Amino acid sequence: MASVKLIEYAEATTEVRAVYDDILATRKIDDVNNFWKALASHPPTLRRTWETLKSVMAPGALDPLTKEMVYLAVSTTNGCDYCIASHTASARRQGMTDEMLGELMAVVGMANETNRLANGYQVEIDEVYR
Amino acid sequence: MASVKLIEYAEATTEVRAVYDDILATRKIDDVNNFWKALASHPPTLRRTWETLKSVMAPGALDPLTKEMVYLAVSTTNGCDYCIASHTASARRQGMTDEMLGELMAVVGMANETNRLANGYQVEIDEVYR
Amino acid sequence: MASVKLIEYAEATTEVRAVYDDILATRKIDDVNNFWKALASHPPTLRRTWETLKSVMAPGALDPLTKEMVYLAVSTTNGCDYCIASHTASARRQGMTDEMLGELMAVVGMANETNRLANGYQVEIDEVYR
Amino acid sequence: MASVKLIEYAEATTEVRAVYDDILATRKIDDVNNFWKALASHPPTLRRTWETLKSVMAPGALDPLTKEMVYLAVSTTNGCDYCIASHTASARRQGMTDEMLGELMAVVGMANETNRLANGYQVEIDEVYR
Amino acid sequence: MASVKLIEYAEATTEVRAVYDDILATRKIDDVNNFWKALASHPPTLRRTWETLKSVMAPGALDPLTKEMVYLAVSTTNGCDYCIASHTASARRQGMTDEMLGELMAVVGMANETNRLANGYQVEIDEVYR
Amino acid sequence: MASVKLIEYAEATTEVRAVYDDILATRKIDDVNNFWKALASHPPTLRRTWETLKSVMAPGALDPLTKEMVYLAVSTTNGCDYCIASHTASARRQGMTDEMLGELMAVVGMANETNRLANGYQVEIDEVYR
Repeated sequence: MASVKLIEYAEATTEVRAVYDDILATRKIDDVNNFWKALASHPPTLRRTWETLKSVMAPGALDPLTKEMVYLAVSTTNGCDYCIASHTASARRQGMTDEMLGELMAVVGMANETNRLANGYQVEIDEVYR
Repeated sequence: MASVKLIEYAEATTEVRAVYDDILATRKIDDVNNFWKALASHPPTLRRTWETLKSVMAPGALDPLTKEMVYLAVSTTNGCDYCIASHTASARRQGMTDEMLGELMAVVGMANETNRLANGYQVEIDEVYR
Repeated sequence: MASVKLIEYAEATTEVRAVYDDILATRKIDDVNNFWKALASHPPTLRRTWETLKSVMAPGALDPLTKEMVYLAVSTTNGCDYCIASHTASARRQGMTDEMLGELMAVVGMANETNRLANGYQVEIDEVYR
Repeated sequence: MASVKLIEYAEATTEVRAVYDDILATRKIDDVNNFWKALASHPPTLRRTWETLKSVMAPGALDPLTKEMVYLAVSTTNGCDYCIASHTASARRQGMTDEMLGELMAVVGMANETNRLANGYQVEIDEVYR
Repeated sequence: MASVKLIEYAEATTEVRAVYDDILATRKIDDVNNFWKALASHPPTLRRTWETLKSVMAPGALDPLTKEMVYLAVSTTNGCDYCIASHTASARRQGMTDEMLGELMAVVGMANETNRLANGYQVEIDEVYR
Repeated sequence: MASVKLIEYAEATTEVRAVYDDILATRKIDDVNNFWKALASHPPTLRRTWETLKSVMAPGALDPLTKEMVYLAVSTTNGCDYCIASHTASARRQGMTDEMLGELMAVVGMANETNRLANGYQVEIDEVYR
């Protein structure tokens, strides 16, 4: 059970509804997910987090699918169950196939492995990388 | 200083040289970096790690630059200095611009932030994501 | 299911009961929680962990609520579900409001984000901080 | 060496200077630190990060010193050297004594320890915490 | 629910069955566990992961029980529930007693604690360790 | 530079000297390392940490070398440079060879990899492990 009361649209303040409305319109969905309903317990965090997310995940020098896969790579590394579930769904909607997920997970696994080999052997950074 | 003696090409066994030769040929470089010279202290780890890396990072459903950026996202999340330095260099060689790095870091930062908001508020996974 | 049999008071040895009694008296509660019942499978760990916790969380230069919120910040960063649940409850008992939890999570999220921005850009420590 | 060119005030664009000016005025200092000079390589990240930080760390339901100590607790858990150095300095400026740092580190260490005991024993969350 | 369809033996391709057969024969079991059924969604990852695991966990300079306990120590530190459950079971099969698990967890907890004390106090590496 | 003044033996209080004396006698060395000199800035943490470490690392159901390798596995996973350096030295003193270190790092790398594969694919725990 969440640490705070989830705020449904019907009971939300005007400030919270404004954010919910923008999420619903931007994502063309009918209901915001639990993450936003929990953040709504602290309206400044709700507003800031949504505005930053909307801006950071918009198409730019990197396309939205690449961004979703990076998000999933980080969430997988941190073991955040909620984030893995929601961002796998988002990446699927953006076109991620099983083959792409397979390659993504292979890179994530490999990076987590070699990060520790570099740590454990205390490898010094080569001059060429400085 | 590394935990083990770094093995230079001149002093390497035939088994280690075979891996070094493949790294040099695949990457079209003149010397392997310290990471491989440290792994050479345990030849089975050197061989397996190189073979897996070569295979995992090859073009597939995801292109090599996307894979390098995912590698960098994981290494940044884990705070592995060696890996951040070497994979930033690899991604730059593959064409990553300051703008792309900026967007990559913005997504990595955002994911690390929202992973903790989801954790801390103990948000339950929505039915729609199950 | 826990990896070990949870030890209930009725079946506990004298050594384990002595720790349970001190937990019950210190916290003014009727039953110890599952964490302690699991640690009781290894009495030296049970005793040491309780004694350290009791001492570390006592009022000192920092007040108990600040200490509980720091505990929650660390548990949130690590994604430990059990610890988040139990220390959210403890912090609530000490007076943490939704507003305080909101600000706490905002700081925890921000720190997790900027930790990665500093890592990923390989920012060198300014002379003034050394 | 940072992954990007550090942007000094003299060479900054108007957009970047506006952020630098706000940092200098808010903190009453003469030069921004390397973290901001690195973020300036991607102006949207510079602006968003500063605005969020300024807002999140302002006095509220939690006082600024408590917020700095929470920031330090997270940075310590993640092992971010840059962040530990800069936020230790900030917390010292806000009045953190050796005694307070000692108690803070004792809580951080304890939380990191018990997070793993709860994980490793697979302790189920008590009904009372749900 | 897993992100991918779990592949049962009856529906597996020849390539996947070959890996499953080797797992079943090596471990003298009747069915592979969910981990392998999920990896089978990306056959190259299934094959590589199994081959590496089989080789890395085989008796060598370290015995299999020590290796399983190290695996459990890492999984506990990372908070990977699936891995903690499966490797606790494997270590139990190899002879790990409650007493050994208790000492293992005590070391894992202690290391996670002192890692943060060393980080937080920014302790410099002694000359003697370089 | 450490966050606190390192306390040398000559300037230590009687309370701190008593701990230093026990470290020197137990380890048969001439000077304590920087870790203890930093902890001495908060005597209760110094005393508790040393007493716990001394007890946890003593021979028991697990031998001291196994315990040192588990410590190194955790420190490597967390990327704690100080701890990796000092516990590699301790493990070497206890008899860890390059071959043993190679196998240890291979297990640590593999566990870090498969932890993320299990996370990322959201693999459910098999009934047999519950």
